[in-house]
Amino acid sequence: MKIIVIGAAGAVGQAVVKELAARHEVISAGRNSGDIRVDLSDIASIEAMYQQVGAVDAVVSAAGNVHFGALAEMGAAEFAIGINDKLMGQVQLVLIGQKYLNDGGSFTLISGVLSQDPIVYGSSASMVNAGLEGFARAAAIELPRGLRINVVSPTVLTESLPSYGPYFRGFESVPAAKVARAFSKSVEGAQTGQVYSVI
Amino acid sequence: MKIIVIGAAGAVGQAVVKELAARHEVISAGRNSGDIRVDLSDIASIEAMYQQVGAVDAVVSAAGNVHFGALAEMGAAEFAIGINDKLMGQVQLVLIGQKYLNDGGSFTLISGVLSQDPIVYGSSASMVNAGLEGFARAAAIELPRGLRINVVSPTVLTESLPSYGPYFRGFESVPAAKVARAFSKSVEGAQTGQVYSVI
Repeated sequence: MKIIVIGAAGAVGQAVVKELAARHEVISAGRNSGDIRVDLSDIASIEAMYQQVGAVDAVVSAAGNVHFGALAEMGAAEFAIGINDKLMGQVQLVLIGQKYLNDGGSFTLISGVLSQDPIVYGSSASMVNAGLEGFARAAAIELPRGLRINVVSPTVLTESLPSYGPYFRGFESVPAAKVARAFSKSVEGAQTGQVYSVI
Repeated sequence: MKIIVIGAAGAVGQAVVKELAARHEVISAGRNSGDIRVDLSDIASIEAMYQQVGAVDAVVSAAGNVHFGALAEMGAAEFAIGINDKLMGQVQLVLIGQKYLNDGGSFTLISGVLSQDPIVYGSSASMVNAGLEGFARAAAIELPRGLRINVVSPTVLTESLPSYGPYFRGFESVPAAKVARAFSKSVEGAQTGQVYSVI
């Protein structure tokens, strides 16, 4: 398969590339690095990425920014970050990408454990992650030509505990390699409309 | 209790007013009718509503627009309708309203069955509804002074079957009065961070 991995330089993205590159042609994409540069918050940038890569069999996203902050101090601007980037950026990967995927191809997006299991400072992330999961369940029943869509929802990465550990006290962490296997299950399996919770 | 009901003129809103007005002081609000006019997509309008009403014990929302359309034909503009109105409009009711609620007060928002159980043309609604549920779970653990937040997630209303029935074939409908009891449970109970699914 020919697979684009967006966010390939991140902790999850690197593990996904490692998992999939052994068996497939992987094209890495990212904001500041990779075979192709793409900014999820910019529709023209997403369209340009697809035009450059051409027809693909799978689109994998391990990318998306969201603002973390106290509920009492957040307003429209802080919520707009996650809406424009992690939420609508990934939705646009599907809206635009449905024209570029080969028959039977797949989209695999990333949400996160906060959709179900919140932390302090995470209200925007919880909203964005849950929204992505709802979108994927719905898009799955409308995509044409056997196209599929799933979401991987990981908890905090073991590799990220040095920086994010204090916000996730008591959460079991998972290694990025385990999260990558959920992406493999989505890309190389046949299910659609699923949320793969990796916790 | 002093309670604002936003979307009071809608099918759910009317039933909620009927349920709560027997025991409480209800102030109705809506885009085109009610004691107070409010446009959920306009932050200044929400702020003005709260300033006009002053301190309240409960904020109930049975309002929010979202675009229904084919996944293949929707773009940023169509998704922005639901994001700016039903999703962020209700989020702003909380972000702004947390300053106006009396200690121990509650927010009750509305999502819908599509968050979990999608229909064709409903990808934006599924995203918005699920996002609201994720937001409420997270906001519940940060709200100060004993403030609470829950979401009511109704399936298609029996009263709406003449217009929406064809889109919800096979779904069991519920009367608006049953949905109103879930709002009562949120407002007059003591739970927080819950999604009351009325299906």
